[in-house]
Amino acid sequence: MRMTKLPDLQTAIIISEAGGPEVLQPAQMTLPQPGAHQVLIRVVAAGINRHDCLQRAAGIHHDGNPVPGLEASGVVVALGPGVTELDIGAPVMALLQGGGYAEYALADVALTMPVPEGLSMTEAAAVPEALFTAWWNFFFLMQLRPDEFALMHGGTSGVGHLALQAMSGLGYSVLATCGSADKVAAAKRFGARNAFNYNDTELAMKVLDATGGQGISALLDVSAGAHLDADLEMMAPDGRIAHLSGGGALSVPLKKLMAKRISITGSLLRPLALARKTEVAQMIRRDVWPLLGTQVRPALAAVLPLSDAAQAHREMGKGHHIGKIVLAVSD
Amino acid sequence: MRMTKLPDLQTAIIISEAGGPEVLQPAQMTLPQPGAHQVLIRVVAAGINRHDCLQRAAGIHHDGNPVPGLEASGVVVALGPGVTELDIGAPVMALLQGGGYAEYALADVALTMPVPEGLSMTEAAAVPEALFTAWWNFFFLMQLRPDEFALMHGGTSGVGHLALQAMSGLGYSVLATCGSADKVAAAKRFGARNAFNYNDTELAMKVLDATGGQGISALLDVSAGAHLDADLEMMAPDGRIAHLSGGGALSVPLKKLMAKRISITGSLLRPLALARKTEVAQMIRRDVWPLLGTQVRPALAAVLPLSDAAQAHREMGKGHHIGKIVLAVSD
Repeated sequence: MRMTKLPDLQTAIIISEAGGPEVLQPAQMTLPQPGAHQVLIRVVAAGINRHDCLQRAAGIHHDGNPVPGLEASGVVVALGPGVTELDIGAPVMALLQGGGYAEYALADVALTMPVPEGLSMTEAAAVPEALFTAWWNFFFLMQLRPDEFALMHGGTSGVGHLALQAMSGLGYSVLATCGSADKVAAAKRFGARNAFNYNDTELAMKVLDATGGQGISALLDVSAGAHLDADLEMMAPDGRIAHLSGGGALSVPLKKLMAKRISITGSLLRPLALARKTEVAQMIRRDVWPLLGTQVRPALAAVLPLSDAAQAHREMGKGHHIGKIVLAVSD
Repeated sequence: MRMTKLPDLQTAIIISEAGGPEVLQPAQMTLPQPGAHQVLIRVVAAGINRHDCLQRAAGIHHDGNPVPGLEASGVVVALGPGVTELDIGAPVMALLQGGGYAEYALADVALTMPVPEGLSMTEAAAVPEALFTAWWNFFFLMQLRPDEFALMHGGTSGVGHLALQAMSGLGYSVLATCGSADKVAAAKRFGARNAFNYNDTELAMKVLDATGGQGISALLDVSAGAHLDADLEMMAPDGRIAHLSGGGALSVPLKKLMAKRISITGSLLRPLALARKTEVAQMIRRDVWPLLGTQVRPALAAVLPLSDAAQAHREMGKGHHIGKIVLAVSD
C-alpha cells in the first residue's frame, strides 16, 4: 500500500441511533484502510441522498456502516493493492459503499472517476449517485433504447435533474413530472422534452400526447407507485416501470399489465454487486463523462459544512430544493 | 389462390351470446378465404383452451370472431397468395387467431407446422397453444437461460404438462405446483424436476430447497397471483414472474420486489403481433418439433365430437382433467 502521511484519526458524522436529523453526531474514528482495488480519498465534498435519510431513520445497523454517504469528491491519498489506474493526488469523484460524511472515505477504484475539467470539486460530489442510479435503472434494468420515450417522476430531484441533462444531452427523449409549476419549469430547463405536474388529473393523456401517442417505454418511479393508474395508461406496449422507493404494497391491476405486457420491477443501488456497478461505471465513463462540466452540470441547492449534516437532512426532508444538497468537508 | 373442390357452407360452433357452455351453438357459415400467406385447413381436431371459456363468458364480440378455437390440426385445402411453404393435402397443426371449432379454419402459414411422424392428428391439435404460450413466456418475455430454474403453477394444465415435457426434454430445470397429490405425481411424470402442492404452507422453503438454494428465475403464473407471497420468497435475484390470467388487483410488496430486483409482468398470446409469434414459431420448430412424438407428447384428457363443444367447456370448468381436452371434427 502506497500512501502519503495521514493523521491517525478523522472526524466523521455517525448515525448515533435511529431517529431524526439530530441523531447525526460527529465522532472521532480511525481512518479506513484501502483493500485490494480500493483507494482512500481525502474528502472535499460529499453528496446527500434520500437513502441517507432512510438509513438514519432506520438506525446504525441498517446498512452495516454507521457513517452515511454514498458519494464524494476528493483527493486520492492512499492506494490499496492492485491499484494502477490512479495516483496519489488525483482529484476524483466516486460512488461509495457508505462512509462519505467523513474527512476520509474508501472507494472502489472501479467506481472512481477523475473530476472533469469544467466541474468544481463541490459539484463533482453531486454527480456519482445520480448518474449511477439513472444509468443502472434506465439502461441496465429497463434496457432503454434510443427510439423509446423515458419518463421520470421527480424531475428536479438529485437523480432527476442530472439524468435529464445527461440523457437529453445524449439524444434520449425524456419526460418528467414534478410537484409544482416552478419545478416543472426547472425540469424543462434541465432538458426534459416536456414536464407536467403529477397532480394533473389529465397527466396520462398529456404525456401520451407529448409522445405523439407512442407512450412511455421506461419509467423511473421514486413515488412508490403514487401515480400507478396514470402510469399504466401512459405506458407504451412492452413498457417497463422501475421503482426506487419502497413504500407499502402496490395494487397492480393484472389485466392492464397483461394487455400491454408492462413489467414492474425495482432495485436498490447499494447492495448491487461490484461487478455490475463496474459495468454501469464503464458506460457512464464512456458516454456521460465527456459531457460533464459543459452540457451536464449538477445544480447545487445548498452547500453546508460537514458539521451541519443534520441541517442538510432537514432540508432534504422539506423537499423544496431543486438539485443536490452537498456537504463541504475540506478545501 | 389454389384449392381443391370445397363445399360452400360448413358447420362451426359459435358463441351465440355471453353465457355458460350452453351458449355454444352449431351454425352454418361460409368458408373463410385465405389471405396473403394464409392457408385454409380442413380441421381434423381442435384444442380447447381456458381462453375459449373466458371468451364464451364475455360474449361474441370479445375477440372479434364468433367461432372460438386457438389451435387445430388438419389438412391444407387452399393456399392464399404467396404461400410456397406448404402444399394442398399437407397434414398440419397450427396456432389460430380463433375459428378452430369448425370444419374449416384459416391459419397463418408462419404459425403452421407439419404434424410430426409420431403424433396422431388428434394429439397434434393439442400441441400449438401450449408450446407457443410456454415458449413466448419463458424464452421471449422472461428470457429463461439454461442455468436458471423455472417454475410453473399448474403443472398438469394444457400448457403445463406439455411445457414440462418439452423444456425438461431440452435440459431445462423446471419445477411445478399442482392442486392435488395425483397432479403432483403426474407433473413429475411429465418431467418436472420436482413438484409440490401449492397449498403447502412450506411451499417456498421446499421449492428453494429443491433448487439447492438458488431459487426460481422464471415463474409462469396462471393463478392470478394467488401464491404471490410464496413466489416472492422462492424467487432468485433478478427473477421474472409472468402472469397468464387476469384476475383483479395484485398486491405487490415493493420492498421485496426491490430487494431481489424481481420483475412482474404478464401477457396475452392472442393479440401478440404476427411477427413476434413467427419468431416464437421458429424457435419451437427448431428446438421442440424434433422431440414431438417421442419425448414430447400431449396427454389427452378427453376427446369429444365438435357438436359436444359445450360438454368440453363443462369439463374445462371442473378442472379435474390432466392434459388437454380436444374436439374431434373429422377423420
